[in-house]
Amino acid sequence: MSKNILDLALIPGDGIGPEVTAEALKVLKAAIGEDNVKTTEYGLGAEHWLETGETLTDETLDAIRGHQAILFGAVGAAPNDTRIPSGLLEREILLKLRFTFDHAVNFRPSVLYPGTTSPLANPGNIDFVVFREGTEGLYVGNGGSMRTGTKHEVANETSVNTAYGVERVVRAAFEYAQGRERKHVTLLHKHNVLVHAGHLWNRIVNEVGQEFPEVTHDYLHVDAAMIFLTTDPGRFDVILTDNMFGDIVTDLAAAVTGGIGLAASGNLNINGTAPSMYEPVHGSAPDIAGQQKADPTAAILSAAILLEQEGYADAALRVNKAVWEDLAVRDNTTRTTQEVGDAIAAAV
Amino acid sequence: MSKNILDLALIPGDGIGPEVTAEALKVLKAAIGEDNVKTTEYGLGAEHWLETGETLTDETLDAIRGHQAILFGAVGAAPNDTRIPSGLLEREILLKLRFTFDHAVNFRPSVLYPGTTSPLANPGNIDFVVFREGTEGLYVGNGGSMRTGTKHEVANETSVNTAYGVERVVRAAFEYAQGRERKHVTLLHKHNVLVHAGHLWNRIVNEVGQEFPEVTHDYLHVDAAMIFLTTDPGRFDVILTDNMFGDIVTDLAAAVTGGIGLAASGNLNINGTAPSMYEPVHGSAPDIAGQQKADPTAAILSAAILLEQEGYADAALRVNKAVWEDLAVRDNTTRTTQEVGDAIAAAV
Ligand SMILES: CC(C)[C@H](C(=O)O)[C@@H](O)C(=O)O
Ligand SMILES: CC(C)[C@H](C(=O)O)[C@@H](O)C(=O)O
Repeated sequence: MSKNILDLALIPGDGIGPEVTAEALKVLKAAIGEDNVKTTEYGLGAEHWLETGETLTDETLDAIRGHQAILFGAVGAAPNDTRIPSGLLEREILLKLRFTFDHAVNFRPSVLYPGTTSPLANPGNIDFVVFREGTEGLYVGNGGSMRTGTKHEVANETSVNTAYGVERVVRAAFEYAQGRERKHVTLLHKHNVLVHAGHLWNRIVNEVGQEFPEVTHDYLHVDAAMIFLTTDPGRFDVILTDNMFGDIVTDLAAAVTGGIGLAASGNLNINGTAPSMYEPVHGSAPDIAGQQKADPTAAILSAAILLEQEGYADAALRVNKAVWEDLAVRDNTTRTTQEVGDAIAAAV
Repeated sequence: MSKNILDLALIPGDGIGPEVTAEALKVLKAAIGEDNVKTTEYGLGAEHWLETGETLTDETLDAIRGHQAILFGAVGAAPNDTRIPSGLLEREILLKLRFTFDHAVNFRPSVLYPGTTSPLANPGNIDFVVFREGTEGLYVGNGGSMRTGTKHEVANETSVNTAYGVERVVRAAFEYAQGRERKHVTLLHKHNVLVHAGHLWNRIVNEVGQEFPEVTHDYLHVDAAMIFLTTDPGRFDVILTDNMFGDIVTDLAAAVTGGIGLAASGNLNINGTAPSMYEPVHGSAPDIAGQQKADPTAAILSAAILLEQEGYADAALRVNKAVWEDLAVRDNTTRTTQEVGDAIAAAV
């Protein structure tokens, strides 16, 4: 049986993006064999924008669309780089990819790995996954302002939620929960204030929930979730929430599991119309870029999610195992980005 | 010089509300003398709604408006009480009071008191105040849905932000920061995604900031703030943010300083057009209601904010000091709600 070649688009991006992506690719190749991976690199980000004035053209989007999956590093200029409008690269590259390629589910696991230090005194056993909706909510760019720049300015931002968009991430969360031991979904929202959106989310969770009798589900206001995530994060199994709440909650989840340096994610197109995209949750960290100081673990774990989702479950398991083992023996000696990648690749 | 009488509206509300409010009032009276306080109780909440079908009428609002300040307990039915529509009491009592009485600033201090246990392993010195905007944003009730209940439903929620509303909370935050040791304001927002609202907040912070040359200020994305609030909360002095982000951030702040049982707040009308309202951040906790199990400290600290804001600075200091001392000697012996109130009142 001839094995298909895994055809990847690589978007290393800015700052530490290229360094961590290189290690993720190294480990991925170690896991399924160098000859079984084909990569095409797309040089998007701050430099490309400064040279060309382009963020991500339709032609480039079309080219990327032809690949099976995308391995993404990070985009974003240094905060003090006044040449680049704040947020431009994030919106016109990262968010544009998520929206154009219909990444319905932003899949973000939170695990407290052995050997990893949580800022919590008693973190307990943390092992949950956040299903963050990826194409709706406050992220749709449906805002505007009037009398801009005056003392009579009004600036609005509209969160748009559709039954179609909510239903698919809800269903994905229940399906995933069904395969887990605890089989429990927790919806986070703020339905006492956001009545209409909250009502929609509640309704769909109740409807879809009935199709999964083995899966239990409950509801928490997003503010109350802050308290549980710091006092008893072990209670969560699968967290389901909208785009903005998901953004906030997954950073807290990353923090309590030892930091953003380990948080991986998959932006999943779940109907096969475009490639999914795998990226570490951390940003471009321009302050430590190019110094081999960045921890490539989040990028490597993102490559493991890629393998899992793209049909290489065995290889994904091996990468995860290698990461667990590497984390367990990490001490305070600092290794370079490359050394971490080498060690994990060797163990795979 | 004849001292004015402090004329308070009391809204004990539901669940543990009446128990904790009673202790707060006891301490307040101990601080300024029983004869100097006049109270009028308004029986709002679940029971009143079940009896009358009314949440908060215009007549009652008018009556409350006549008082100098409001001491509020908590409203909210038990989550499993299906007789009361979810969120109704919160919206039609609590939020209605905040909006009708133009509570521009939701003032929420976060202090890690000596003797208090944080869930963080190394909390450091936590002492900051959140200035949460109180009358705008996603809380304005500017949402709706179409094709409701069908698979084509669209549900929107609009965050409305005005230069007027933003400017007054920004100014209040800078004025307050000016009187603090570190004199530092941190704006939390998500301006890389919420471009229009974010731009307005940034602009006003920069403009108002120029009037306060001694106060430094910086900016953090709200998601990144999650990380700092759990790894280095001591860095914050004055946090400034919108209504929804403020809701989320203040619960996390309460959590890292040892829990919602200590988190106090003032909903401040800053132009003198209506009474300000002082309330513990916690809810009605129906599960422990009527059992003298609730910690009244958050309500007592809210009364201290009331005293401070309503012109009784000395008394406020004495209440705060009594709370600090009480917290420092608390051990694991459980006292009743009343015993805690008695002890603090005696020390005042
Ligand atoms: C960079 C930014 C636009 C992005 C988001 O808000 O989704 C990031 O915070 C994330 O969580 O992936
Ligand atoms: C009860 C609820 C409406 C309220 C809010 O969202 O503001 C509460 O969470 C708070 O923080 O005071």
